Amino acid sequence: MRIGILGTGAVGQTFGTRLHNLDHDVTLGARETGNPRALEWAEAHAARCGTFAEAVADADLVINATAGQHAVNALEMAGGNSALAGKVVLDVSNPLDFSTGELRLSVCNTDSVGEQLQRSFPDARIVKSLNTVNGSVMVEPTLVPGQHTIFVAGNDADAKRAVTVLLGEFGWAAANVLDLGGIEASRGMEMYMPLWVSILRALDGNLAFNINVIQG
Amino acid sequence: MRIGILGTGAVGQTFGTRLHNLDHDVTLGARETGNPRALEWAEAHAARCGTFAEAVADADLVINATAGQHAVNALEMAGGNSALAGKVVLDVSNPLDFSTGELRLSVCNTDSVGEQLQRSFPDARIVKSLNTVNGSVMVEPTLVPGQHTIFVAGNDADAKRAVTVLLGEFGWAAANVLDLGGIEASRGMEMYMPLWVSILRALDGNLAFNINVIQG
Repeated sequence: MRIGILGTGAVGQTFGTRLHNLDHDVTLGARETGNPRALEWAEAHAARCGTFAEAVADADLVINATAGQHAVNALEMAGGNSALAGKVVLDVSNPLDFSTGELRLSVCNTDSVGEQLQRSFPDARIVKSLNTVNGSVMVEPTLVPGQHTIFVAGNDADAKRAVTVLLGEFGWAAANVLDLGGIEASRGMEMYMPLWVSILRALDGNLAFNINVIQG
Repeated sequence: MRIGILGTGAVGQTFGTRLHNLDHDVTLGARETGNPRALEWAEAHAARCGTFAEAVADADLVINATAGQHAVNALEMAGGNSALAGKVVLDVSNPLDFSTGELRLSVCNTDSVGEQLQRSFPDARIVKSLNTVNGSVMVEPTLVPGQHTIFVAGNDADAKRAVTVLLGEFGWAAANVLDLGGIEASRGMEMYMPLWVSILRALDGNLAFNINVIQG
């Protein structure tokens, strides 16, 4: 599959490398042409890099791995609604703001990044997933032992199915994928972040953790 | 132990009945004297009810089971800082606001009910716990099979130990109690609510669920 990744940070590169190793045709998209991190990654993996727009142009699936605060802007730069029309956009971002020295969400409670993206690009098929675990766990869930849960949310059932197939390639068993419904469920998935950070601290910084939903 | 419960709703009564059955000396506290729900509960269980102030007066441990939006006011009515000084206050509340027809938290992101209580009543020993599960699961964790996690947060280590003992009486194994640190971790515990509600819907309304934190 042709996959365009928006964002050249740790999460973007983690997706790029994993998807490249899974034989997908990856383009790592950067804000500017000639981004040194993107060039270095592309050279190391004999893969492609380019601008956000180039990453999206011929992609079957787009992954938003930019910071949540900048996600709408990044997808605008990628060509906006017309460039994204019909495409599945997997949004793994969180609106984390550490500028005050402690965690704030730049949007929450009445809105979320997932909803902002779907509202801004109504013809894109936004699917929120994977934002509730660390980047390494996103693409390699076996780093956490046993059964544990990953959420998906989005308005388009086919798009969620396509994402669930991709999750399966990463190692997420279908039985551990919990569909939370429409894109408005992004709100809860993003608002979990402060608890996630507290758990991370309680586990002495071990990023290889997740939660398993259990019912009686 | 003498336990004062603030709040006569479903959660307050669930705690009252369970603690009464565990042979604790319970007073179910209401906003006004003669609250019919409190009187009915007290009669049915041959237990005591009274005002918030009466529930707190001789209590070794206080449980805040009022709605999160009204918690500070309820503890004020109970006698405020002087009445609560030195007492362990287990806060199980959430700032849920459904007045718009969908879930909003009345406080989040930069503050939480747990923090509001500790700030308003600096000599009380506030411990946040149990707010991440349904009332029935709070006092009977075996409703959810296997291992699953309950969080505690608070500034006073002895108070957290006292609450952990009480959790043990309910059936929460010490190994499943995850200490998230100071009371500021209430923020994440309360902001988990929108995800909790989404999970509840995905599980077709089965309230007997919880999450288990797993690390690699």
